[in-house]
Amino acid sequence: MSVFRSPQNPIIEPKDVKPSRSDFEVIGVFNAGVARFEDKVILLLRVAERPICAHPDMVLAGVYDVAQGDIVLKEFSKNEPENDFSDPRLIIRPTETYLTSISHLRLARSADGINFDIEDTPAIGPANDIESFGIEDPRISLIDGTYYVTYVAVCPSGVTSCLASTKDFKSFQRHGVIFCPENKDVVLFPESAFGGTRKYYALHRPVSPLFKRQDIWIAESPDLICWGNHRPLLAPDEDCWDQVKVGGSAVPFKIAQGWLEIYHGVGHDNRYCLGAVILDASQPWKVIARAEKPIFEPQDDYETSGFFGNVVFTCGLLYEQEKLKIYYGAADTVICYAELPVQDVFESLNLAGSA
Amino acid sequence: MSVFRSPQNPIIEPKDVKPSRSDFEVIGVFNAGVARFEDKVILLLRVAERPICAHPDMVLAGVYDVAQGDIVLKEFSKNEPENDFSDPRLIIRPTETYLTSISHLRLARSADGINFDIEDTPAIGPANDIESFGIEDPRISLIDGTYYVTYVAVCPSGVTSCLASTKDFKSFQRHGVIFCPENKDVVLFPESAFGGTRKYYALHRPVSPLFKRQDIWIAESPDLICWGNHRPLLAPDEDCWDQVKVGGSAVPFKIAQGWLEIYHGVGHDNRYCLGAVILDASQPWKVIARAEKPIFEPQDDYETSGFFGNVVFTCGLLYEQEKLKIYYGAADTVICYAELPVQDVFESLNLAGSA
Repeated sequence: MSVFRSPQNPIIEPKDVKPSRSDFEVIGVFNAGVARFEDKVILLLRVAERPICAHPDMVLAGVYDVAQGDIVLKEFSKNEPENDFSDPRLIIRPTETYLTSISHLRLARSADGINFDIEDTPAIGPANDIESFGIEDPRISLIDGTYYVTYVAVCPSGVTSCLASTKDFKSFQRHGVIFCPENKDVVLFPESAFGGTRKYYALHRPVSPLFKRQDIWIAESPDLICWGNHRPLLAPDEDCWDQVKVGGSAVPFKIAQGWLEIYHGVGHDNRYCLGAVILDASQPWKVIARAEKPIFEPQDDYETSGFFGNVVFTCGLLYEQEKLKIYYGAADTVICYAELPVQDVFESLNLAGSA
Repeated sequence: MSVFRSPQNPIIEPKDVKPSRSDFEVIGVFNAGVARFEDKVILLLRVAERPICAHPDMVLAGVYDVAQGDIVLKEFSKNEPENDFSDPRLIIRPTETYLTSISHLRLARSADGINFDIEDTPAIGPANDIESFGIEDPRISLIDGTYYVTYVAVCPSGVTSCLASTKDFKSFQRHGVIFCPENKDVVLFPESAFGGTRKYYALHRPVSPLFKRQDIWIAESPDLICWGNHRPLLAPDEDCWDQVKVGGSAVPFKIAQGWLEIYHGVGHDNRYCLGAVILDASQPWKVIARAEKPIFEPQDDYETSGFFGNVVFTCGLLYEQEKLKIYYGAADTVICYAELPVQDVFESLNLAGSA
């Protein structure tokens, strides 16, 4: 795989993003949804912030409060044995769990795809009970002239996936929870008809605690809001690199052989890499081919070290000029850019033809 | 609460049910869906079976195999330290989990509601990959002349909820997975229009391992197959009896004040009891009233002792003659019958009026 990493990587870092409040600091900007809109590349950034804390023995968590219509701060003492800080993302207490950061979505625009103008305020921020711990990991699918954004919403009731839509990237309309807990990595196929009828498909990633499974499933919908006919699509492969969990990542795109989906997988080594799979064009619940090796792995310092190291994770790419132009979160801290020749991806899938 | 328990309890026991195969034994008959059909009371029984095992050091598990079109047997040694049998329902191994029993659904009919004729063969048995570990806990909702059956399907990919339908309780049509892992306790409201438009509602019980939550959610659908607009409805109440988890149980029914839902809850004492809640008639995502105490608790021997003791669990009831005629699984072993005056349930909900 001849991977080209931008020499400007990371192309967006926390210091490039203005905090949403003067008492917050940005600790991560990563996992961005991607779209071409008018003559620009649009990124919908996941911006993770935490309240600035002057007390070295305290941790502050930001939680959206519906009654107040704003994020309020909660204090947790590092000296209290009840508070478990062993996972850097969580504050685990006996009967409740909080996040150490709260995320929102921020717009960035670029003419060249590398240098981005980042808006000063959130495009979509937590605004209801379901989003009280923040919103994360957007994916953008262009369907019939509307941009649909799936995103993860976190709250004490669980991790859900929600839908919003926009035509102009100025105003966004919310459509509620489309996948109930625990569900992440929802990716809409950018097409509204399958087999001659109006129908939508989505990849999603439910969790089975009983069977310890985190697989990719596929579902169908008549309206993008309500989803059913859930089927398991792709499971971790014990004999391969992605033994522990998998999830949809980029929005799939059409090639001659079907839909090319770039997904993420995690192995026993706890590294997040990207993999490739081809789904049937008209029956996307059928896997045509799956690459045996990752197509992209953490390698450079900004990928191996950070808030959560050894992670490359994409929520979107552009397929242009026979290349996959991948925007990816590295180490849950920064946004980077890489290009992969689609021909190399085909070879990893043992596909002879080209797109 | 003036509870009447049938003196014939348990009304159905494992010995009353013919095994589906000569090499199986019935170890539980419980958690039955309930309907009135023609002049009979119909129960759709959950029948749990296990392969008869002659070797005291072995445990056999039945698993439906799609290629063979039949249940095949898997052997597990009690002497192998890798096999964890600490939960009587499970065989937990390092990378996989099996069930110690496999369930199917069986029809039973009664003229008097107490003495049932039980069919000799399964009405709905495991028949595909999603159902390979069995099907469980049916609920029956009569909607526009069709009986819709929701049931739990278990397989190595997770615990899902599926839909089937029938008009005659002879042939059943499957409609696939309507709620993806981990989801149980799906109960369809027996109505097809809300607010003047064609719409369906369901209670469901997703699981959030991250936040350790097992709450009742509500979802809506245009067609009973695809579900969205998921909203948390009822959470465990730390100050009450149902502190650990709650789930929908019986199909809700209309009374003057809205929908009366009999749900189940589990407290820190690990007892399964039944609770009562009223939901708004046209906006069923709004809780009008919730009883502070269980309306029905394990008390008699057949409820406190069995395969899984201290459990009363209902999947259905009949609301007739101002009484709740509850069919319930006791100790995950037998089916019992009890009657509760609806007036007593109203009083527990602090409702003055009657239905």
